[in-house]
Amino acid sequence: MSEAIGVWLIGARGSVATTAVAGAAALRAGLAAPVGCVADLPDFAGAGLPALSELVFGGHDVVQTPLSKRAEQLAHAGVLPPDLPALVAADLAAADDEIRCGARQSTDVDRLAADLADFADRHGLTRVVVINVASTEPPVAPHPAHGSLAALESALRHGDPVLPASSLYAYAALRAGCGYVDFTPSTGAALPALDELAREMRVPYAGRDGKTGETLLRSVLAPMFAQRALRVLAWSGTNLLGGGDGATLADPDTAASKNRSKQRVLPDALGYPVDGEVHIDYVASLGEHKTAWDHVLFEGFLGARMTLQLTWQGCDSALAAPLILDLARFMALALSTGRPGPVPELGFFFKDPIGASPPGLAAQYAALREWAAP
Amino acid sequence: MSEAIGVWLIGARGSVATTAVAGAAALRAGLAAPVGCVADLPDFAGAGLPALSELVFGGHDVVQTPLSKRAEQLAHAGVLPPDLPALVAADLAAADDEIRCGARQSTDVDRLAADLADFADRHGLTRVVVINVASTEPPVAPHPAHGSLAALESALRHGDPVLPASSLYAYAALRAGCGYVDFTPSTGAALPALDELAREMRVPYAGRDGKTGETLLRSVLAPMFAQRALRVLAWSGTNLLGGGDGATLADPDTAASKNRSKQRVLPDALGYPVDGEVHIDYVASLGEHKTAWDHVLFEGFLGARMTLQLTWQGCDSALAAPLILDLARFMALALSTGRPGPVPELGFFFKDPIGASPPGLAAQYAALREWAAP
Amino acid sequence: MSEAIGVWLIGARGSVATTAVAGAAALRAGLAAPVGCVADLPDFAGAGLPALSELVFGGHDVVQTPLSKRAEQLAHAGVLPPDLPALVAADLAAADDEIRCGARQSTDVDRLAADLADFADRHGLTRVVVINVASTEPPVAPHPAHGSLAALESALRHGDPVLPASSLYAYAALRAGCGYVDFTPSTGAALPALDELAREMRVPYAGRDGKTGETLLRSVLAPMFAQRALRVLAWSGTNLLGGGDGATLADPDTAASKNRSKQRVLPDALGYPVDGEVHIDYVASLGEHKTAWDHVLFEGFLGARMTLQLTWQGCDSALAAPLILDLARFMALALSTGRPGPVPELGFFFKDPIGASPPGLAAQYAALREWAAP
Amino acid sequence: MSEAIGVWLIGARGSVATTAVAGAAALRAGLAAPVGCVADLPDFAGAGLPALSELVFGGHDVVQTPLSKRAEQLAHAGVLPPDLPALVAADLAAADDEIRCGARQSTDVDRLAADLADFADRHGLTRVVVINVASTEPPVAPHPAHGSLAALESALRHGDPVLPASSLYAYAALRAGCGYVDFTPSTGAALPALDELAREMRVPYAGRDGKTGETLLRSVLAPMFAQRALRVLAWSGTNLLGGGDGATLADPDTAASKNRSKQRVLPDALGYPVDGEVHIDYVASLGEHKTAWDHVLFEGFLGARMTLQLTWQGCDSALAAPLILDLARFMALALSTGRPGPVPELGFFFKDPIGASPPGLAAQYAALREWAAP
Repeated sequence: MSEAIGVWLIGARGSVATTAVAGAAALRAGLAAPVGCVADLPDFAGAGLPALSELVFGGHDVVQTPLSKRAEQLAHAGVLPPDLPALVAADLAAADDEIRCGARQSTDVDRLAADLADFADRHGLTRVVVINVASTEPPVAPHPAHGSLAALESALRHGDPVLPASSLYAYAALRAGCGYVDFTPSTGAALPALDELAREMRVPYAGRDGKTGETLLRSVLAPMFAQRALRVLAWSGTNLLGGGDGATLADPDTAASKNRSKQRVLPDALGYPVDGEVHIDYVASLGEHKTAWDHVLFEGFLGARMTLQLTWQGCDSALAAPLILDLARFMALALSTGRPGPVPELGFFFKDPIGASPPGLAAQYAALREWAAP
Repeated sequence: MSEAIGVWLIGARGSVATTAVAGAAALRAGLAAPVGCVADLPDFAGAGLPALSELVFGGHDVVQTPLSKRAEQLAHAGVLPPDLPALVAADLAAADDEIRCGARQSTDVDRLAADLADFADRHGLTRVVVINVASTEPPVAPHPAHGSLAALESALRHGDPVLPASSLYAYAALRAGCGYVDFTPSTGAALPALDELAREMRVPYAGRDGKTGETLLRSVLAPMFAQRALRVLAWSGTNLLGGGDGATLADPDTAASKNRSKQRVLPDALGYPVDGEVHIDYVASLGEHKTAWDHVLFEGFLGARMTLQLTWQGCDSALAAPLILDLARFMALALSTGRPGPVPELGFFFKDPIGASPPGLAAQYAALREWAAP
Repeated sequence: MSEAIGVWLIGARGSVATTAVAGAAALRAGLAAPVGCVADLPDFAGAGLPALSELVFGGHDVVQTPLSKRAEQLAHAGVLPPDLPALVAADLAAADDEIRCGARQSTDVDRLAADLADFADRHGLTRVVVINVASTEPPVAPHPAHGSLAALESALRHGDPVLPASSLYAYAALRAGCGYVDFTPSTGAALPALDELAREMRVPYAGRDGKTGETLLRSVLAPMFAQRALRVLAWSGTNLLGGGDGATLADPDTAASKNRSKQRVLPDALGYPVDGEVHIDYVASLGEHKTAWDHVLFEGFLGARMTLQLTWQGCDSALAAPLILDLARFMALALSTGRPGPVPELGFFFKDPIGASPPGLAAQYAALREWAAP
Repeated sequence: MSEAIGVWLIGARGSVATTAVAGAAALRAGLAAPVGCVADLPDFAGAGLPALSELVFGGHDVVQTPLSKRAEQLAHAGVLPPDLPALVAADLAAADDEIRCGARQSTDVDRLAADLADFADRHGLTRVVVINVASTEPPVAPHPAHGSLAALESALRHGDPVLPASSLYAYAALRAGCGYVDFTPSTGAALPALDELAREMRVPYAGRDGKTGETLLRSVLAPMFAQRALRVLAWSGTNLLGGGDGATLADPDTAASKNRSKQRVLPDALGYPVDGEVHIDYVASLGEHKTAWDHVLFEGFLGARMTLQLTWQGCDSALAAPLILDLARFMALALSTGRPGPVPELGFFFKDPIGASPPGLAAQYAALREWAAP
């Protein structure tokens, strides 16, 4: 018997969320093949993952633009096929009806949780996955209230602004018994107090920062250098981003969050620190597209100097959206198997996996398969 | 107790062989770290592989240039450090003394085997690995004598020219009880008759075509596309090669051998045939260097078109030489464990592995480790 | 007083022609800025070039697809803005009415000329420019009839198939008193007999092979190396083309025509022959897009080896179409000033200029300006 | 009759200076062809430029490493041919004898001028050109003493530190009747007070910031976009530099000087401001090499988006050194023709030309030829 799974998107009117909702509808209607959908690979055929048709979408956002309008903008920008917004208008409208106003005040946390409970009630959802696809936040200063659930709840009761928005949403999600995923480099659930809450509520969480371009490449190429015993001397990168993501990341504080995620993969895979900077430039005229250039200088036998250069040209929303659907489906599995706390087996999807995830995409894929479809 | 292992190189005066011999001497003398040497990775510390100091070099070649002179040319071209030829002059001279004149006639096969036996006797070698690093041959037309050892030996007795040079050397090696490795795309031991001989003699063989650049990259990137369910529409490549290898491969017949090897990795890893050509251009002024450019056009979610471009700039001999030393050491292990026939676990090193090797470098590395250091 | 100029396109239903017709309509209607239009640069403001609104379009083609349908295909492929075909439907229909069936038989030459005369009559055109944007032909074998107008006309009278299609059209155009431009590498008017005809008829002709990508870049970069006294050792290139052009050029004979054009610019600009191959690959999934990668190996002071790599990613029709409009307008100027024979000052537009054109884009631009707007 | 020309290098023991001195000696001795030497192009055969054999080298530096040792380091790093330092040892020693200790105090200015006068006396030099190849300085704050020669000399008499080192050297050079060239982005002679001095002394000066890589390419490619009426939407760049230059430019203040020079060429050539950042990263392991990647996003006909990417891999000293010799020879011409003040015709060599220089390398080359070899 089919069962409805809730997918609650923080940043539900953004490019990634809109593409995910429109894309799920397109796939359900047979208008497109599940290209980019890991959960639909033959390897996971027997994993018991929910079908796309079982997903029900809702979310929070602080902007009011209807999904139908965002979808038209994305079609104009070449992210969605030109005809798609009209063909999936009903699905977009249904999701639009389930979007509630977002929050930035700690006093809102009860309302956020209530929104989630109402969503589950209205649709008879036994499992709900909350996924953060909102704009990246700047890094957050440590605070004593982050250290334990008791301290955190005391601070929240006093209305102290100790949590960034991503963590408020995570708190509300976990408290409401939902799974929580951070697809951004924001703090989200990555605080001891929230880990404690997830374990207490027996719900899973995962993150951070979806791996959709430069870091995805680094996660397959760095192991290659390691396995061939070639020594990476410097790995430099420049990312040109248009769209809202680029504008947000043009802020140096926010870029710091992003860069921290990006820079983890190399020392993890290589076993030593690597020289080289990563730049993120906002190039408005790129629109929804992004370009990453990487330059790797490495040493081979007897000191020979050699280089590898990469240029990755992608559409960020088209890369991220199917992974949102994947994460909803894999987290639904984690919820159904009663697995509390971090799910490091989802490290395959992230730049900066929470929990013990092996370095290297191939090993992460093996871990995912081992867990989901043993 | 230390034991001497023979490494017999077909094409012993070429760039790869000279770099391997000079490099082994440099590493033994502590003049360089074992960068590029897979066998020296911590993963293989307990595998019982022979040390570099246990390798004794010899080989066949049809040219007469002394190794010391080749080494100076390579130092001038930037492949070897400027001072190295002088510092390892004794080792080069010792290997030079063990180089015998190569052969292209089937009537020479007994002499080739005798050269191997003499080499083993002179140095008290219990195990000898023959490695083909000679110029690539054109593809070979099928012949009934290739089908069984009896038919082959009958043809050889009659002096019929049924085998290309690489296979004559393979015959001589296997008949002499040596392991045989083909680091080129030439035919080598990849004939049913020679497989039969290897099993009869209870010796291992491996190949073909060392994976040192474009194909190495393809073997890590193609699995990434597969695991992310992204559909590769076209994968195009251009290789610019200087040096002797480039000149040889400028011949369309010979390039056909090379291209056949190169093109296997993509359908193996992706599971479907992929559009796109591979060019190999001889660019004399590149000298010992090579440059590969790959352009990958792929489809993501909802039909989005995206691209990845790669430029790999390497020194062919510096990439190949440490793998020659690795193959000698891993084949010594295969010889010592009495493993006859193909060694597919060495697929990690090859473009076109003989035997059942998983697609993808990560899986091949895992298979190598599982076999050599379980 | 405004005056109508005829633009007669050979291959009038192809991508380039359709984009040119739709684009001229868009610019006339103020729907787009004249980006890509050289004739609209301030440098040519006083040159007396006809306005876009003075151009009347017609042409020959052997296919029947209506322009409106081709325009929709191009909008779907991202070459034209999505709404444009509907907005310029009347202009497309008007041009469609002026497209006649093309010809490949020499017996058709009178009919082709009659089509041109009728076109001029119907619209009261004093000047007509015929521009070949049809598929590239294979190279043509020399024939004695190419050597003089008398010999050619004798052969044509006997129905001898001595001319390729592009030259038949050129013959008809010149005979009808029209200017003729070859935007392809086909033979077109580049025969002594046709040069004689152009001079006799006192009409201009120009060509060959529009410079829209790799060769455009070469024509600015090769002079840079020359002026800095840097020695180019090898200049290699790979072109990946989708669309009809790519399919045509996948034929080795036809590619030979293209490559001959492409390879002229380097020795012309550098003063010495340059090593390096140029590949043209058909990659169907690229659609209307093309990608060119160039690798330049050069020598600097004291033998230092350095490299430049370029990747050009363009839309062929979007690059070519404004040049078609430019050529129509500059050729109208040549017609009005009574200038017979080749117009080498248009070498700025071509890979393989007919007549004495300076090497290097900057010098070609200066020559164009000097001629058109002294 | 041959005549000796003095070439006095500020930063005389650096990589560029050492390569220039060693290279001039190599060319004089016939050990290398004048690759990279603009003054030796046929276009300048009749310009009356001094021969390389007429140049006598000296300079200031604050470090003590002998030129012979620097040359060996450069040979080891692959900048100079391995044997060259030994072959030109006498020339290096002769130049070494003419290097005096540099200065950073305004009180030293008389001593600097005296060093120049002594140099000229010792060698009977009628003309001396001072060229700054020292490390780039941070931008200098405006000061009232920069505005007139009288104010400047008053400040210098009082020992006020109003000038950066590059301008102290420029003051000393001009006061001593020498030509002055700034090959760096430092201030040098680019102050009204120093312009006044140059005109009073009737000596020429030129600068700033030698154009040897990314900006050289921009100066040929930006005009191409302009002449083809293509609209550049964003031009982004990343420069990876090793060596001393990279380390200096890793300082954000100093990089500001460099970036200001680099960013001028685009608006000058295109006629409008262009989006896009330029990064300069220090990558120590690149040694004497540098790599620049540029990404150009441009708009064509009807809004089509297209891109050009460039990767330039060069050896900074090998690119700069021949231009130092060129500038010495062209400035000797300016001195001999009694041309006071800036020499904008040398804009061909600079990122940020002093005086009215046309945008675009081709126009700059034409201006240089017109001036030097009319």
